[in-house]
Amino acid sequence: MKIDAARFLKDLHDLRAIGAAGVGKGVVRPAYSAADVEAREWLAGRMRDAGLKVEVDAMGNLFGLAEGPSILLGSHSDSQPEGGWLDGALGVIAALEVARAAGEAGGPAVSVVSFQDEEGRFGVTTGSTVWSGALDQAKADGFTDDAGVSLAEARRAMAGMVTGPVDPAQFTGYIELHIEQGPTLDDSGEQIGVVSDIVGIRDMKVTFEGQQNHAGTTPMAVRRDAFQAVSEFNSLLNDRLRNVVTPSTVWTIGHVSLHPNASSIVPGKAVFSMQWRDGDSDRLGRMERIIRETAEEVAKGRGMELSFGPMLGLEPVAMDARLRDALAEAAEAVAPGKWRKMPSGALHDATNVARLMPVAMLFAPSINGISHAFEEDTDEADLVAAVEVLGRAVAAL
Amino acid sequence: MKIDAARFLKDLHDLRAIGAAGVGKGVVRPAYSAADVEAREWLAGRMRDAGLKVEVDAMGNLFGLAEGPSILLGSHSDSQPEGGWLDGALGVIAALEVARAAGEAGGPAVSVVSFQDEEGRFGVTTGSTVWSGALDQAKADGFTDDAGVSLAEARRAMAGMVTGPVDPAQFTGYIELHIEQGPTLDDSGEQIGVVSDIVGIRDMKVTFEGQQNHAGTTPMAVRRDAFQAVSEFNSLLNDRLRNVVTPSTVWTIGHVSLHPNASSIVPGKAVFSMQWRDGDSDRLGRMERIIRETAEEVAKGRGMELSFGPMLGLEPVAMDARLRDALAEAAEAVAPGKWRKMPSGALHDATNVARLMPVAMLFAPSINGISHAFEEDTDEADLVAAVEVLGRAVAAL
Repeated sequence: MKIDAARFLKDLHDLRAIGAAGVGKGVVRPAYSAADVEAREWLAGRMRDAGLKVEVDAMGNLFGLAEGPSILLGSHSDSQPEGGWLDGALGVIAALEVARAAGEAGGPAVSVVSFQDEEGRFGVTTGSTVWSGALDQAKADGFTDDAGVSLAEARRAMAGMVTGPVDPAQFTGYIELHIEQGPTLDDSGEQIGVVSDIVGIRDMKVTFEGQQNHAGTTPMAVRRDAFQAVSEFNSLLNDRLRNVVTPSTVWTIGHVSLHPNASSIVPGKAVFSMQWRDGDSDRLGRMERIIRETAEEVAKGRGMELSFGPMLGLEPVAMDARLRDALAEAAEAVAPGKWRKMPSGALHDATNVARLMPVAMLFAPSINGISHAFEEDTDEADLVAAVEVLGRAVAAL
Repeated sequence: MKIDAARFLKDLHDLRAIGAAGVGKGVVRPAYSAADVEAREWLAGRMRDAGLKVEVDAMGNLFGLAEGPSILLGSHSDSQPEGGWLDGALGVIAALEVARAAGEAGGPAVSVVSFQDEEGRFGVTTGSTVWSGALDQAKADGFTDDAGVSLAEARRAMAGMVTGPVDPAQFTGYIELHIEQGPTLDDSGEQIGVVSDIVGIRDMKVTFEGQQNHAGTTPMAVRRDAFQAVSEFNSLLNDRLRNVVTPSTVWTIGHVSLHPNASSIVPGKAVFSMQWRDGDSDRLGRMERIIRETAEEVAKGRGMELSFGPMLGLEPVAMDARLRDALAEAAEAVAPGKWRKMPSGALHDATNVARLMPVAMLFAPSINGISHAFEEDTDEADLVAAVEVLGRAVAAL
């Protein structure tokens, strides 16, 4: 099949224009926002132009279906609260281009998907989690975002597009192209990463409750300050995790909410996010025990109430050997000596889809490893190389 | 003069009903909110009923003026975002009752004030700071609250009540009754605290800026995580301040705002409040140096940008001997052996008024020392004892 690089890049920039914000090529297109819904309506139109049948499930996962059994390509088109133009969008537009090129070449049959809420406004890769059957819609509908809006309420914004359930049995496999979102390929000057496996992730909210009080008249010795509890927990945790982690293990406190969050009041309550990732399920479990024990120790020592939210997350997943080898052969043909096999430190929809069918992934470089930020970018030559590897691998299956 | 305890308590409960919220006797009546403006209109009416002339300055400080030279009594009627029913309100309603009782007794001349924004929506005791001449209205108008609303914008809510400047020269002194907001009187079973001096306060915003990035693909070693910077700063500061503080010194990080505050993103920016209080100006200065040096050290070590907001605060203030002695004699008469001289760990409008005239303060107990919270309360017998001490002291001047 013949990839049309100009057509591919034009679609990528047209999608970027929907929700364009911030500096550089930044976009603000969180799941179910007006910009996200507009982008999905635009994608549906491009799918129809490519001769694909558009179907949308109750979650808002958007499919463009080829006739009969087909290989499924795609990613997601929702963004972080402040995101880049390629995180998810690259995989969706590359899938669209390969489906078009395959159609023009008389085959193979290629379907396209843009999953919903991969960025986790309501959880972790919520759309593909529900589609894969790991989470039922009714339970997911109860999830709320940081502003307290429920998923049930938010997804009404897409009600007009919904056609019904989309049967996974029609797909022979799933391949997702994504930016690396890390520095490895950019540092080594390589163009393609063929993913060996995707690390697992754990994510939960933790709450410390002490005593809200006056910041001038409450002696330090009798305070039950929720921020001090979070700070002590963080310091102890950093020390204790060193004994169990590898250089590729990561853990993050990315969200902190103090109550009442005023400069003259000792904070009575702190809610924060605790997220950790590793390629080894056992290690993720050992980290969870250390996190829970450390939080319990801090709460006990400071006379605070402690509660843990529901544990979200996904197990590490190995890529399908046949699909992965097809990507490796195509990478060597398109970028000889300028590609590598590597794990994915980021979570992807492929992790969920692996419950249903063989999956594989490939990476394009991220300049300076920056992602989940407006500055996220990739050289166009690398974007084109990546879509050519994807097309060549699909043609060879 | 004869204090009417029932009339005093009824007014106190009527004021509480305006903005009543949360549990127990909680109120939500922040400066310039609809509830705050309604409360000031109600107070203006009660002042007129008491034969006082109502005047309101541009800041929204509300005065009820007696004829000719008079002693000024009062406090504030705005509340914390989540406040109690007595913080400020006690001093205003007690002043109103003493003014009424003095009027009925044919003297002395007593005026009443409710200062605006004592709780610092826009700074620190903003209303009395402006009235005392320490801050000009134009500069104060540029201050913004945590939501980004400017004081100039917020005070429009009271524009209809403003009569113009209120001349401090008509007042011979200022006495403020307030709840202790700490555990000392409640623990000792005493009814009255006669304040010796008010501690000084320093308050500033601190900002760390690092690099916002993906929480799965950014190795721990290369992160520039703004929350980690705040946590390390807090731990180092707690250790270092131990060497310069006394048991009555306090320091608080009560407000923390991470950006973008999402669980899957390494926080690129953190803004937090740093507040500290002590009775000794030199110690406040030594603490400031340690705070700035520690923040600079953390920023340098982590490759972060560091910036400090404007330094707000007030110097420690000693109470006027004549007024303080009148309060002490009245306390011994009303609650023999059940009162003490003590410093005020909390900041009060009296600190600002001390620039203009002699000032003194007395405290009523706070049950369990709780304040700046819905649970704040005081036994009615102690409230009545406090207003009787205030009336007796004023009559004796």
